[in-house]
Amino acid sequence: MANDKEQWHELGQQLRVDSIRSSTAAGSGHPTSSMSGADLMAVLMSKYLHYDFDNPQNSANDHLIFSKGHASPLLYSVYKAAGAITDAEMLTFRKFGSRMEGHPTPELPWVDVATGSLGQGLPIAVGVALAGKKLDKLPYHVWVLLGDSEMAEGSIWEAFDHASYNGLNNLIGILDMNRLGQRGETDLGWNGAAYAARARAFGWHAIEIDGHDFDQIDKAYAEAISQDKPTLIVAKTKKGSGVALTENKDGWHGKPLDAAQEEAAIKELGGERHITVQVPKPAGNVPVPESGKGTSLKLPTYALGGDKVPTRKAYGDALAALAARPDVVVLDAEVSNSTHAEEFKKVAPDRFFEMFIAEQQMVAAAVGMSVRHRVAFASTFAAFLTRAADFIRMAAISRANLRLCGSHAGVSIGEDGPSQMALEDLSMMRSIHGSTVLYPSDPNQTAHLVALMADLPGISFLRSTRAALPTLYGPEETFSVGGSKTLRQSDNDKVTVIGAGITLHEALKAADTLKGEDIAVRVIDLYSVKPVDRQTLFAAAQATAGRFVVVEDHWEQGGLGSAVLEAFTVSPDGGDPPPLHLLHLAVQGMPTSGKPDQLIEAAGISASHIADAVRSLVK
Amino acid sequence: MANDKEQWHELGQQLRVDSIRSSTAAGSGHPTSSMSGADLMAVLMSKYLHYDFDNPQNSANDHLIFSKGHASPLLYSVYKAAGAITDAEMLTFRKFGSRMEGHPTPELPWVDVATGSLGQGLPIAVGVALAGKKLDKLPYHVWVLLGDSEMAEGSIWEAFDHASYNGLNNLIGILDMNRLGQRGETDLGWNGAAYAARARAFGWHAIEIDGHDFDQIDKAYAEAISQDKPTLIVAKTKKGSGVALTENKDGWHGKPLDAAQEEAAIKELGGERHITVQVPKPAGNVPVPESGKGTSLKLPTYALGGDKVPTRKAYGDALAALAARPDVVVLDAEVSNSTHAEEFKKVAPDRFFEMFIAEQQMVAAAVGMSVRHRVAFASTFAAFLTRAADFIRMAAISRANLRLCGSHAGVSIGEDGPSQMALEDLSMMRSIHGSTVLYPSDPNQTAHLVALMADLPGISFLRSTRAALPTLYGPEETFSVGGSKTLRQSDNDKVTVIGAGITLHEALKAADTLKGEDIAVRVIDLYSVKPVDRQTLFAAAQATAGRFVVVEDHWEQGGLGSAVLEAFTVSPDGGDPPPLHLLHLAVQGMPTSGKPDQLIEAAGISASHIADAVRSLVK
Repeated sequence: MANDKEQWHELGQQLRVDSIRSSTAAGSGHPTSSMSGADLMAVLMSKYLHYDFDNPQNSANDHLIFSKGHASPLLYSVYKAAGAITDAEMLTFRKFGSRMEGHPTPELPWVDVATGSLGQGLPIAVGVALAGKKLDKLPYHVWVLLGDSEMAEGSIWEAFDHASYNGLNNLIGILDMNRLGQRGETDLGWNGAAYAARARAFGWHAIEIDGHDFDQIDKAYAEAISQDKPTLIVAKTKKGSGVALTENKDGWHGKPLDAAQEEAAIKELGGERHITVQVPKPAGNVPVPESGKGTSLKLPTYALGGDKVPTRKAYGDALAALAARPDVVVLDAEVSNSTHAEEFKKVAPDRFFEMFIAEQQMVAAAVGMSVRHRVAFASTFAAFLTRAADFIRMAAISRANLRLCGSHAGVSIGEDGPSQMALEDLSMMRSIHGSTVLYPSDPNQTAHLVALMADLPGISFLRSTRAALPTLYGPEETFSVGGSKTLRQSDNDKVTVIGAGITLHEALKAADTLKGEDIAVRVIDLYSVKPVDRQTLFAAAQATAGRFVVVEDHWEQGGLGSAVLEAFTVSPDGGDPPPLHLLHLAVQGMPTSGKPDQLIEAAGISASHIADAVRSLVK
Repeated sequence: MANDKEQWHELGQQLRVDSIRSSTAAGSGHPTSSMSGADLMAVLMSKYLHYDFDNPQNSANDHLIFSKGHASPLLYSVYKAAGAITDAEMLTFRKFGSRMEGHPTPELPWVDVATGSLGQGLPIAVGVALAGKKLDKLPYHVWVLLGDSEMAEGSIWEAFDHASYNGLNNLIGILDMNRLGQRGETDLGWNGAAYAARARAFGWHAIEIDGHDFDQIDKAYAEAISQDKPTLIVAKTKKGSGVALTENKDGWHGKPLDAAQEEAAIKELGGERHITVQVPKPAGNVPVPESGKGTSLKLPTYALGGDKVPTRKAYGDALAALAARPDVVVLDAEVSNSTHAEEFKKVAPDRFFEMFIAEQQMVAAAVGMSVRHRVAFASTFAAFLTRAADFIRMAAISRANLRLCGSHAGVSIGEDGPSQMALEDLSMMRSIHGSTVLYPSDPNQTAHLVALMADLPGISFLRSTRAALPTLYGPEETFSVGGSKTLRQSDNDKVTVIGAGITLHEALKAADTLKGEDIAVRVIDLYSVKPVDRQTLFAAAQATAGRFVVVEDHWEQGGLGSAVLEAFTVSPDGGDPPPLHLLHLAVQGMPTSGKPDQLIEAAGISASHIADAVRSLVK
């Protein structure tokens, strides 16, 4: 034990020295936030973390997530000490072209997810731990290094709630309670008892320790892995510990030492070391779960001219069909009877996860499932996906594969009023890096698109509608990401009307009205909002002298109209689009309660408004 | 007391009956979620709530916020019983044109804020209570009716944290623990002890009661108003209580009774009643706080050709100048030394609110301050404002006046990497109803725009930049919402380049380069991203044959490019814009760490890319 302690001390000092060295070399970064956690990581990596750095794909590996992503110098120092990276690579920290980014990203094979937006690592870890406990059924542990500042984020408490509800004793939070946030003391300072009481009230086991006492750290880890519930280790630490200049001193957040300070600090810490630690390996080599890609699916079908079926119902039906794929999991935020995700629950209850009204945790858990190679679909009202906007943004940086469905889009939901109406979701989801945005108008189309989503990389979003609408496509019709459907077309088209979802139905009504006035209208179903079918749009613009009416159940900004307009920009490689005279109909004024038809009319996006817009373009 | 109890019973039954009547008349709504809270509201409005319904502007009034906004039938029943609305108006519930919307909005003068997105009422109430305690210094109480389902939202725990940290003993949460959520039992069911333990761990006083026992309710309120900390009353209730058909029965969420069920239920509840209650009035009539509009301000000035000053620093300096207005308050999410909101704290510490790393609570508190007539500015990194997207969306429905500043926008922040880079904030903020979006490139401009924001209605957003950049405008230059500045112009302009913030500086460099090649370029500073200066853009399009290059430090979707494109749509009233050949430069690929210049170059938005784009348009 004494021997262990000496080794841990040496390793802890090395992690401190290396955190200082890399950040000083970078000229930026967070050495002091790293130094406080050094002793905690020294013991963890030497004795408790089971990880095969040569084989990060081994499903038996533990997971180590730095929820306090700004402690990246510490993480990279751990990787160096584990022999995973060289000292030289560590010193490329924050340089252009280096994998050693300012905050960790999965560009590094040992990093599960990007962190750096505080309060996200723990909720994502809940997803990884859920997968381990309920799906993988593997004994791996998920270790999460938490900062005390991020305990102020509500998402952390969503994670505490879900971890205990699901009995995740494979999840261990290590709270690096160094007292100091970015601009001074945190809310609770060194009040470890308060953190422990909160954790216990949320159903966790909690242990308070001195985070620089190796005996206490060792005992805490041993205690944590033998619990029947998740554990929070509240470790009282000192920011910038080990160096008098920085230890427990304000004003040192996110600030590297200068060259002279670095030299003195390294001396004070006992000099550079280049210890390599044998990180314990997990028992055995477990392959990643098999992909369900290619599983034959029996998608639901809906008869043309049959009962009206809302697209949200078709979403649920399609999920139920996808249950044939063992890698598909479904999460929902306590509205599965509205989103119809419950259809999946009925056939595959073991792969359905009730996330209650905690949209951030829902998206985070889906990201965690993606880390464990699951094909995760997550749903709630589209309006409430805005609650998880930062998690979706970060999921893109995590290179997560994630499928979101937002139901009850637009004013057409009716009586519930504006708080329940998504009117900005297309904008939000289009501006997620690498995203796919789909907006079906028909149940057969929905089913096909949901099946396509299962194999899409990155973040995809399906916008579904509350109302039951006529079926427009037969079950055999095919659809593609980046595709569109032209539903009305003639050699004599005067104007192109573009809609999707509910407004496509309004557009068809308008086209029928205008036909009676001898105005031929081309109608395009732009169900793939991103990517968009540029070719079809260009051909339509050429055919109708650039006269477009775009109509959407969404605010004016960033939605379908923007998608069309952006398609008509000049390509840097020279492609020049045809000229465009686009009239845009989007929701005007703050909606209220009312019947769907009344609200569509009041918003200025009904068939009558479309017909008027067309007439104004041809007069 | 016995007499009181009989009266409370009668009133509680009336609130139940009326909740059933209005929702049955509407054909939708949440009667059972209303019935569970009826007894709690009967006692509150008869004895504890101090509110002058004839004068909702009386600053001495208590505040009653339904965080569970779907219990609107109960709220409107309370208003009827208070004599504020007629029975007939109550029965217009959820009808088009009625103020009795599906979820409450401030269209009703007694409603402070819109609710309906769960977990928002309590954090907003924290803002109202903070104002009462620290600014108004008035003895009003803030009463919040909470649903048990929404206790799963992390934002609720941010509110608990901030309420105790600030000693808000004027805040009382009434948890209507009716066990049943939308699709079944909640996480904690009737485990009142768990809710109480969580509240206590977060520093609140907690009282567990039977929410249908009038003695217990009465005593709990009396106890709550005499505490030195905020109180949570955990009231065990039955959803749909008082009617055998619905009481504590699953499957009745958000479902009205049909006509026959209604008749039987009303009979079971003892029939219709039309009691009017004398709601206690507050002591005295306190006017709303005085507006600081028109206060003479000494804005900071920056010399042309002087030191480079980042726009984020100018934001802080301008806030410090605005401190001369007594109605201005500033909130920040623990990064005030980065956003420079700390400049305000230095001069007006009593009106600066540290919200720690809790962006949802920050925005909610600012909304609460807006309820109390304060001119609230709230800031954090623009990337982390996405954390509060749903709160900002709802703030627009609340008709709140709210000023947000997001710093560290775009790849130009450099080494910290993508988690800290806002690349979707313009898109998010543009698609908020009625919003104003400003993006300055210079410190003098920033100071002027911040001063303008103080008097703007609705939600405004200022995007600030990390880097120190040259000053472009003199201190005397004026700016307007909806304005722009043309910085380079000649009779011979071939292409218009449009930028804002950091890319404007790149555009100016490109223009200088191109001048040497005899390509005259018009350069527009489109600092008002919403509303946009259509007239100047049209004139520029006419002058340069529609050749535009728009360049932005933002993803391709929904930002500056979209703002320009949307300006060139056809007006329904006939205005036909000039033709456009727009080449759009926006961030390409997932950014990494690196120096700002390297990242701007890699993203494809540097001066060299702009020059290439211009050349490609004129070749």
